[in-house]
Amino acid sequence: MGLSAKQAYTNLKKRHAESAHLQGSASILMSDRTLSMPKGSAAERSQMVGVISAVNHRSMTDPVLGDWLEKAESEISKLAPIDQRNLELMRKSWVLSTAMPSDLVERGSKIRSEGRPLHAQQKTDRTGNWKDVEGWFKEAFDYARETGAVKKEVLGMPSIYDALLDGFSPGVSAKIVEAQFAKLDAALPDLIRATMERQKSQGGALPLDGSFHKSKQMRFNNWGVRAVGFDYERGRLDAITGHPSCGGSTGDKRITTFLDRGDFTKSFKACVHEAGHGMYYQGLDPDWAYQPVGGCQGMDIHESQSMIIEYQACMTPEFITLAALKAREVFGDAPSLQTGNLHKHMLNVQPSLIRVYADELTYPMHISLRAELERAVVEGELEVSDLPDAWNEGMQKRFGVQPENHIDGLMQDVHWYVGSMGYFPSYALGAMGAAQLFNAATAANPDIRPQIGQGNFKPLLDWLRPNIHARGCIVDASQLMKDATGETLNADHHVEHLKRRYLEEPGL
Amino acid sequence: MGLSAKQAYTNLKKRHAESAHLQGSASILMSDRTLSMPKGSAAERSQMVGVISAVNHRSMTDPVLGDWLEKAESEISKLAPIDQRNLELMRKSWVLSTAMPSDLVERGSKIRSEGRPLHAQQKTDRTGNWKDVEGWFKEAFDYARETGAVKKEVLGMPSIYDALLDGFSPGVSAKIVEAQFAKLDAALPDLIRATMERQKSQGGALPLDGSFHKSKQMRFNNWGVRAVGFDYERGRLDAITGHPSCGGSTGDKRITTFLDRGDFTKSFKACVHEAGHGMYYQGLDPDWAYQPVGGCQGMDIHESQSMIIEYQACMTPEFITLAALKAREVFGDAPSLQTGNLHKHMLNVQPSLIRVYADELTYPMHISLRAELERAVVEGELEVSDLPDAWNEGMQKRFGVQPENHIDGLMQDVHWYVGSMGYFPSYALGAMGAAQLFNAATAANPDIRPQIGQGNFKPLLDWLRPNIHARGCIVDASQLMKDATGETLNADHHVEHLKRRYLEEPGL
Repeated sequence: MGLSAKQAYTNLKKRHAESAHLQGSASILMSDRTLSMPKGSAAERSQMVGVISAVNHRSMTDPVLGDWLEKAESEISKLAPIDQRNLELMRKSWVLSTAMPSDLVERGSKIRSEGRPLHAQQKTDRTGNWKDVEGWFKEAFDYARETGAVKKEVLGMPSIYDALLDGFSPGVSAKIVEAQFAKLDAALPDLIRATMERQKSQGGALPLDGSFHKSKQMRFNNWGVRAVGFDYERGRLDAITGHPSCGGSTGDKRITTFLDRGDFTKSFKACVHEAGHGMYYQGLDPDWAYQPVGGCQGMDIHESQSMIIEYQACMTPEFITLAALKAREVFGDAPSLQTGNLHKHMLNVQPSLIRVYADELTYPMHISLRAELERAVVEGELEVSDLPDAWNEGMQKRFGVQPENHIDGLMQDVHWYVGSMGYFPSYALGAMGAAQLFNAATAANPDIRPQIGQGNFKPLLDWLRPNIHARGCIVDASQLMKDATGETLNADHHVEHLKRRYLEEPGL
Repeated sequence: MGLSAKQAYTNLKKRHAESAHLQGSASILMSDRTLSMPKGSAAERSQMVGVISAVNHRSMTDPVLGDWLEKAESEISKLAPIDQRNLELMRKSWVLSTAMPSDLVERGSKIRSEGRPLHAQQKTDRTGNWKDVEGWFKEAFDYARETGAVKKEVLGMPSIYDALLDGFSPGVSAKIVEAQFAKLDAALPDLIRATMERQKSQGGALPLDGSFHKSKQMRFNNWGVRAVGFDYERGRLDAITGHPSCGGSTGDKRITTFLDRGDFTKSFKACVHEAGHGMYYQGLDPDWAYQPVGGCQGMDIHESQSMIIEYQACMTPEFITLAALKAREVFGDAPSLQTGNLHKHMLNVQPSLIRVYADELTYPMHISLRAELERAVVEGELEVSDLPDAWNEGMQKRFGVQPENHIDGLMQDVHWYVGSMGYFPSYALGAMGAAQLFNAATAANPDIRPQIGQGNFKPLLDWLRPNIHARGCIVDASQLMKDATGETLNADHHVEHLKRRYLEEPGL
């Protein structure tokens, strides 16, 4: 083959950029589905997105890529360091996408496409009959275990669960998860109890009164999303029914939020959370944004970027004071919208059965339970049929309560229905990372918090851009944290943050 | 190769369906660009659509398709007739897409992507300096001539212009264009003169008075588009600035229209015209809609479907009477909205220099001029540098006027800037086809016109669906017309229609 190493690498770059644009196209098609598509076109739209995915897979498993990789790698030392890293990531992507036997790929498609409606049905029915889904969970865990085993083999991972984690949070090992989650498990139950006592002694928050009309909520949301630094020239915010999300392509981020007529803060928090995800994309280095080396890290770092905005920045007394002022401007003056009350309302801690409604303090406990259980099942230490008992036991230990209905228990989340074992830890890893990064950012620039209180997030973004966003995948997640904060991921920062906020910070 | 003929054909069907969905995806991305995309995302969106086009091209010129075709064709007689036709069309598509040398493909991309902004610039500047574009026109004509020569060769066409026509109106020969256009050239100049005299003697229409607010115009437009039978479950209508269009995918048609605050009929006519295009897609046989045999015919038949709605149906006295009633309901009563005046207004004939503003009667003359000139240049009978004189001479002959500024002359339309020689005839072929089809439809079901007067287009659609829409490309365009009307395309129907409408029909 007459191809030069340089040309081979150029071809690879072109093919990977194509892949990024195909994925971006599918995301925009999904956004259009929500915003504009007439309802009778749903079936065609699903086919379309399926075709893009299939064509992309075919293109990225084209045997010619194997030839190009070998050729390019034969002269890798001549490449600039960033290109070397890019080529390494291309190799990893190639190894993974060509390693899966096609029957496993097909089982994965089936589990993802059928698991989602099954979950939705269960949530609607609320019968919570474990026997109705036990077989499906077995299938999904078998699938996850088998794909994990393949990945473990080809990537030389220490365990199957490590391999599954790698699919969502590359560079984060099962050992890291275990060590860091242990700190949360040790500290949080007491912290939750102490916080609840403190909040009780301070008196509960007045419920938010007023009817928060859609247009007013969106005015408030748009104010917040603009304030935190989301770029509306390369993205938009829309109200929908359903779960909040950040979709769209790298250069056109589509944030969506639900609206709750009785409590505007729920939608607001969702908005700034999703804006954090969006701003991560918007801060990628444009020269590399469509290459493996220039894209976003895994879900752990991604969540750290949403949570640094939602939890670390927007729940500071500085920002809540500003938000309360704005809320009274938009919704009208009311006792429940006074600064002190809004502060109480937003920081209110109340253990509940449902993960997605959990507050900042109890949320990591939900994750620790799921991580513990999914690891045990994947590694063969626990049977799927033992999950209901193990779930209830774990809830009892962490929260002192357990669900009466499995739909409020192990049947509540979609992740296991669709075979996404290894996903859950990223939520708590993100919260830890957010605390650690915010500490480092505010230490480097003490003006960050006062400016947030003025509605100016630029100093925070000015720190996040060079330290996280624009670095893409130049290094792995652990090194990224180390470069940005001086140490690898350490849950102590998160625990300290929670203690400060919930036990030490005075009321407003 | 162990592949069976049956499997080879199945693979081909799958690949062609993928191609249709990729093209549909690109169209939805373009629609989203107009409806939802933030403006800072334009460059990425162009890349995205370019990638989809490139990936589709690569997929459809994959050498494996050549193997599949040979294999499938080896047992073509075992296939059902519709599959045989499908396979023939796949072969034609393969021959065409693999015949073009890559430098010609690249020149085509350049001419299309640079020609459009060049045209837009000229329209904005209005300097009309021929020397500024002469070189570009030469390049574009050279490109068209060379691609035509390749197509002539591989498809065995009688002439280069035949080959170019085939790209837009497959099955329509240069001979057909010449013969049918000659009938228009012979009849229309006199007819235009006679009509103008008649209209003068009847007194001109009052100008439409009133300010036609956007929301009211859209209410009126939506009423009309729904009335003519466009399915809003699989499509939508939006107001934009810029040219009206019918985009989107087969199962999700996106109609757009401009609004003119001073004359709501312009937008309305655009709407029902584009709805006609949309309804053609909506009427395709769903079992075959993404296969070559089940897609739409060329632009000639497509235009017949828009023009049968706009000109044949919506400009009947029956429908104008109904539309005037609706207009008064929506916009308020006014003398200029009385039935008789609206009828005069909509049928008003006034030769003008600009094709896109031309009325039903003068429009075909604009096309005949362009067709005559582009054929002559492509066939080497006329130099590009002689176009300005030839244009003015042709205008003088047809309309008795000629432009003072070339931007109102041969520089006005985008088609030649982007190398789309062979496109223009389809507009007039569509008008002819529409007249011929409407004659056949109303002869087969005399209730069609009265029902249109009731705002019920179902009887017309009930005829168009089995005779045109659902037949897709089962036969070629000539046979389609013959099957539907008993004869191949014949401009006499159009001429007769125009005479009836403009010289015989009484006022309202």
